[in-house]
Amino acid sequence: MSDLATALDDVQDASQPERFSTALSQLSDLFGERFSTSHALREQHAHTTTWLKNQPPDAVIFALSTEEVAKAVRICSAHQVPIIPFGTGSSLEGHVNAPSGGVSIDLSRMDKVLEVNSEDLDCRVEAGVTRKTLNSFIRDTGLFFPIDPGADASLGGMAATRASGTNAVRYGTMKDAVLGLTVVTADGRIIRTGGRARKSSAGYDLTRLFVGSEGTLGIITELTLRLHGQPEAISGGVCPFPDVQSACNAVIATIQMGLPVARIELMDSLQVKACNAYSKLELAETPTLFLEFHGSEASVREQSETFSAIAEEMGGGPFDWATLAEDRSKLWAARHDAYWAGKSLKPDAQIMVTDVCVPISRLADCVSATAEDIRSEGFLAPIVGHVGDGNFHVQILVNLDDPEEKRRTEAFVERLAIRAIDMGGTCTGEHGVGQGKQKYLRREHGEALDVMQALKQALDPGNVMNPGKILPQS
Amino acid sequence: MSDLATALDDVQDASQPERFSTALSQLSDLFGERFSTSHALREQHAHTTTWLKNQPPDAVIFALSTEEVAKAVRICSAHQVPIIPFGTGSSLEGHVNAPSGGVSIDLSRMDKVLEVNSEDLDCRVEAGVTRKTLNSFIRDTGLFFPIDPGADASLGGMAATRASGTNAVRYGTMKDAVLGLTVVTADGRIIRTGGRARKSSAGYDLTRLFVGSEGTLGIITELTLRLHGQPEAISGGVCPFPDVQSACNAVIATIQMGLPVARIELMDSLQVKACNAYSKLELAETPTLFLEFHGSEASVREQSETFSAIAEEMGGGPFDWATLAEDRSKLWAARHDAYWAGKSLKPDAQIMVTDVCVPISRLADCVSATAEDIRSEGFLAPIVGHVGDGNFHVQILVNLDDPEEKRRTEAFVERLAIRAIDMGGTCTGEHGVGQGKQKYLRREHGEALDVMQALKQALDPGNVMNPGKILPQS
Repeated sequence: MSDLATALDDVQDASQPERFSTALSQLSDLFGERFSTSHALREQHAHTTTWLKNQPPDAVIFALSTEEVAKAVRICSAHQVPIIPFGTGSSLEGHVNAPSGGVSIDLSRMDKVLEVNSEDLDCRVEAGVTRKTLNSFIRDTGLFFPIDPGADASLGGMAATRASGTNAVRYGTMKDAVLGLTVVTADGRIIRTGGRARKSSAGYDLTRLFVGSEGTLGIITELTLRLHGQPEAISGGVCPFPDVQSACNAVIATIQMGLPVARIELMDSLQVKACNAYSKLELAETPTLFLEFHGSEASVREQSETFSAIAEEMGGGPFDWATLAEDRSKLWAARHDAYWAGKSLKPDAQIMVTDVCVPISRLADCVSATAEDIRSEGFLAPIVGHVGDGNFHVQILVNLDDPEEKRRTEAFVERLAIRAIDMGGTCTGEHGVGQGKQKYLRREHGEALDVMQALKQALDPGNVMNPGKILPQS
Repeated sequence: MSDLATALDDVQDASQPERFSTALSQLSDLFGERFSTSHALREQHAHTTTWLKNQPPDAVIFALSTEEVAKAVRICSAHQVPIIPFGTGSSLEGHVNAPSGGVSIDLSRMDKVLEVNSEDLDCRVEAGVTRKTLNSFIRDTGLFFPIDPGADASLGGMAATRASGTNAVRYGTMKDAVLGLTVVTADGRIIRTGGRARKSSAGYDLTRLFVGSEGTLGIITELTLRLHGQPEAISGGVCPFPDVQSACNAVIATIQMGLPVARIELMDSLQVKACNAYSKLELAETPTLFLEFHGSEASVREQSETFSAIAEEMGGGPFDWATLAEDRSKLWAARHDAYWAGKSLKPDAQIMVTDVCVPISRLADCVSATAEDIRSEGFLAPIVGHVGDGNFHVQILVNLDDPEEKRRTEAFVERLAIRAIDMGGTCTGEHGVGQGKQKYLRREHGEALDVMQALKQALDPGNVMNPGKILPQS
C-alpha cells in the first residue's frame, strides 16, 4: 500500500471539497459520457425502497470492466472519496446511500455471462448480471441458479448482501452459491478468491468474507457460481393450518425428517387475505404454508404424500397438491406478489419492510409475539416467511410522513430485532445490515463486532469503501 | 488491545529465553499438573503423521475451559510465546508442529457435548469432542453429524482445517456444518461468531473466517454444529469401470443429474487390489466406485437404479447394490481401511499422503496424469478419492530415510499440487496448508495471499497464533 500512502500524503492537506472535485474531474475524464452528476440519476442511485432517507452520491459512473472499477477505486482512494457499489438498487436497508457523499459505481452494464461449465455445474458472470438474466441464459443447458430473493437483483449485489429467499431451505444462500469472486480492494488491487474446485482447505476463506460485506471491504466485479440440475419433476401446493403454531410445528417436523423440501413458505391470515384479493385466489384465510418439491416424478410424489401426513398430524390440511405447471405458477406468482398484495390492502400507505431469523424451534413464539405486537399497535402488517430457515418478514403499511407513526414503526422494528436476537436468532436473515440494522450488531455479536472493525480497518484503512454501512461509526 | 500493548512494552527488552521461561512458569502455576514439559509428551504433541519433521513445543498444557484457554493466551501473548492448539494430532500437514517453539494447548479434555437441540437440528460442543463421540451421544435423537474425514478427529480441529471426507458431496464440509464458534483471539478475548439461526446477513462472516484458519487467527474452543436426520434407508454398493475416465464420466453424469448421492468414492486398481488383500474382499481389480444413497426406501432404490443405468451407459458395471447393512458395513470398512490396506502393500515402507481437488471435468485428466507420473517414477502409490467433489488422495509408499527417494517424493507432490492448481483446482481439498502446502499458495491465490497476510496482521499482530502455518514467512 505504499503507493497509496504516498498519494495520501499528497492530498492530506487538501480540503474535502478540493479532494472531491479533483477526483470527480479525473473520473469524468476517464469515464466520459459514463460519468454523471445529474440530480435525478444521483437520487435514483441512492436508497429508494424503504423509510430510510435518500442520500445521493456526488456522481455516478457506469463501469464496463474490472480494470475500470480498479482505476476508479484508485482515484477515489487517493482523494479519500467514498465509493458506493450499485447493482440494481433493490436492497432494503440503505446499502446504496451515500451518507458522506462520494461516487456510486454502477455495475449494471457489466452484464456478461463469461462462461458456463455444464460438466462442473458452475459459471462465471460479471457482477451486473441479474439472476433472471442468468437463468434465461443457461436454460438450455438443463441447469439453473436457485437463489431467488424476489427482486431481479444483480448477482454482485446478491453476493454483497448474502441474499437468499424462497429456495434457500434446499439450495442454501449466496454464501453457498458463490465458489469464487473477483474483487477490487480499497487500494485498487484486483484479487481473485476461491476457485472452481468444489472445496478447498487452502487458506483463509476470503470468498465468504466478501460475501455479505456489503461493499465495505471491496467491490465484487465477477462471480463464479454453483449451478444445479433442473429437477426432473416439480410439485407443490398450499396447506392451511388453524394457527401459526401448528404450521410451524409442521415445518419443524418436515425439516427434522430430512424431507428435501425446495420451498416452504408461511403466510399469515392477513397475507393470505391480501393475496386472495390481489391474485384472484380462493384460499382459506388462515395461516398457510406454500410448498414446493423437486426431484424425480416418484420422489416428488412421495415427498408430497409425506408432507400431507405431517400436516394432518399437526392439525392442518388438507394439502392441496398442485402438480400442474399452470396451477403451481399461479400459486408462486401470488407468493412472489405478496409485497404488492400487501400494499393493495391500503394503497395510499407507504411500506416498511423488515426481516429477522430465529432457530426454527422459536419461530412460532417469535411470529406469535410479533403478531401480538402488531395487534396492540393497531398496524396493518402482513407476515410472510421462509420458514424452513426460521426467517420471516413483516411488511408494515404506514404513513411515514406522520412523525408519530414513523416513530412507532421504528420502535416496532427495534422490538422485533431485539426479540429475534434474544431468541438466539439474528436481526436480519437476508436483507443485510446497511444503515438500518447497525444499532443491533453490538447486541447480536458482542465483542466479535470489534473483530469485524479490525478487519475493516485492515482492508480499508481510509474508510472509503461504502462508509457508514454495517459497522456503527465509532 | 491497549492492555496487551502495555504488557508488550514491559517485556520487549527481555530476551527470548527469559520471555519463554517467565511465561512457562506462569502457566505452570496456573495449570499445575496439567502443565508438562516431558519430552515424550511434547513429541507426541508435534507432527507425527507424515514426512514432515517433528518439531515439539516447549510445553504442553491441558485446558478444561474457554476461560483457561483465554488466560493461557494472555500469558503467551504478553511474552510473545507461540501458541499451538492441539486436538487429536491427526492432521497431515504439520499443523501441530512448533517451528518456533511455544506452548501446545491440548483441548482434548474439553470433551463435553453442551447442548443438543433436536428441534433445530443443531448442537453445541466443546472443541475436544470427537466426531465419533458426538455421533454416539446423539444416536438416540434420530440425528447424526455427517462430516467424516476418516480419523476420529476433534471437532475443533476439523473446523480449524476445514475438514470434509466421504459424505461432503451431499452434506458439505466443515464450512457448511459450523453455525457458530467460540474463539479465543490473540489478545485473549473470548468472542462468539455466528449463532443458531440457519442463516444471517448481519455482518462479516467471522465463522467461516475462523473455519480453515488452522489456529493462526484464534483458538476455537466451542462449536455450534448443524445436525441432520438419520436417513430412513441407506443403500450402497460398488461399481467397476474399465478405466478411470469412464468412472469419472459416471460421476459427472451423476452429479449433473442432481442425484443426491451421499458418498461416491473412487479407488484405482492398485487400491482395490490392496483392499482385497487387506479386507478379504473379492472385487475386480479395476477402477471402482463405492457409492452410498440416503433417503426413503423408495428413493434409495430409485437412486440405485438411476446410477446403475448411468454406469452402464459409461461402459461400467454391473453395479452391485448391497442394501444389507452387514454387506454395506463391510464395504465401507474396507474403504475406511484404505490407508492401512495401502500400507500393507509394502509393510516396511513409510507413507506419504497428499490431497488435491480439481473441477470434476478435469478429474479424469488429473488422476490419469498423476497415475502416469506414479508409473514413470516407479512408485507404489494407490489413489483414492472423494470424486463427487473432484478431490483425491495419493498415498505413496516410500523409504523416507533415503534422501534421494524423499527428494523424488517431494518433487512428485509438488508436481501434483501444481497440476491441480493449473487445472483450476486447489493444492489441498481437505487436508489443509499447515507447513506442507505453504509454497503453493502464491501460485493458487496470487495477490489474494496479500489480503490473507493483512488479515493475519490485523488479528494477530504479534504472530503468536500457530506461527509458521498457512502463510509463508515473509
